[in-house]
Amino acid sequence: MKRKIDYTLYLCTDRGLMSTGNLEDAVEQAVRGGTTVVQLREKDCSSAEFYETARKVKKITDAANVPLIINDRVDIALAADADGVHVGQSDLPAAVVRKIIGPDKIVGVSTATVEEAVKAQEDGADYIGVGAMFATGTKQNTRAVSMERLAEIRKAVDIPIVVIGGINETNAAQFNGTGINGLAVVSAIISKPDITAAAGTLRDIFQG
Amino acid sequence: MKRKIDYTLYLCTDRGLMSTGNLEDAVEQAVRGGTTVVQLREKDCSSAEFYETARKVKKITDAANVPLIINDRVDIALAADADGVHVGQSDLPAAVVRKIIGPDKIVGVSTATVEEAVKAQEDGADYIGVGAMFATGTKQNTRAVSMERLAEIRKAVDIPIVVIGGINETNAAQFNGTGINGLAVVSAIISKPDITAAAGTLRDIFQG
Repeated sequence: MKRKIDYTLYLCTDRGLMSTGNLEDAVEQAVRGGTTVVQLREKDCSSAEFYETARKVKKITDAANVPLIINDRVDIALAADADGVHVGQSDLPAAVVRKIIGPDKIVGVSTATVEEAVKAQEDGADYIGVGAMFATGTKQNTRAVSMERLAEIRKAVDIPIVVIGGINETNAAQFNGTGINGLAVVSAIISKPDITAAAGTLRDIFQG
Repeated sequence: MKRKIDYTLYLCTDRGLMSTGNLEDAVEQAVRGGTTVVQLREKDCSSAEFYETARKVKKITDAANVPLIINDRVDIALAADADGVHVGQSDLPAAVVRKIIGPDKIVGVSTATVEEAVKAQEDGADYIGVGAMFATGTKQNTRAVSMERLAEIRKAVDIPIVVIGGINETNAAQFNGTGINGLAVVSAIISKPDITAAAGTLRDIFQG
């Protein structure tokens, strides 16, 4: 059966942005601070390494009862029995992902327009990421999404929305009252010296 | 049901080594020359591009009744409904691949030692690639496999073996009488101005 997810604070990992320590430790600290979803994103490693990392991180997320989502790689998600997969517009199409991953896993899709959001919902996505909301050093070729566009997307789809892209403790409060379901962050948690505290601060700011 | 494969001439694609034209044309010319298996190997593109390329190449291989194997990416193999997947020692473990791809798809594994070959067979591989047999510019960190080692591997496993790594028209005859099932080549077909003729030449040389 499909897992019910609390999207409030959604951490995307990025080893390149980590200030210290290893990835498993960082995830452990983030979930201790109130992170409710973890997405594992690995772009520059072998499939074997991605799989091994996913298995290690899953032990931590399982212990914290937090779902683990794998970025892009449906095969790694299946191999590690993760809770789901997240795909962007240049990954496998969501409808294809749904077909090969089955009905019980979570499928998330990155979107930046109303059209992409509606298509993701039609294709069987469980949630969408919307962004980039702000300028960010994490992703190249990011397309900025205005607060007006976000409101249009919120009206156009029923599935949960997490916002992503440059969100941090100074701008997170803007999303209170917008009807979105959570904040997706990378550096605002993973780059901080005190990851647990950074996650806790974001949770305190975002009330939904 | 699992497809019965003729491994005689096994082409691994590599866009970087192509002398001219596009990939689909090259595959079409290779199967016209007698290529019996095509493995699609794409390392530097998005998942969406890999998937689209796999779908295009599959139209060609289907029309020629030649099986299509996807390198590394089990999800792309499933998405494109390819005939199987080929994994190396730094990809997903073969036993995990078998579990997620199901019993009816072909699973191939790259091996260089008796131990790796026996493990691949135990883990459910349908065939193994053995190499690198000769020095090659295609793969970094290749481990050379001697003809003696190849004979040991042939004795140790029952599943089909294709040899790979620097095989071309000047050395292919060495494998006649060794009990292996086919030649896997990259540049000896894909880099040639006349791909159809190059494939035909290799087929003529290797009699098994």
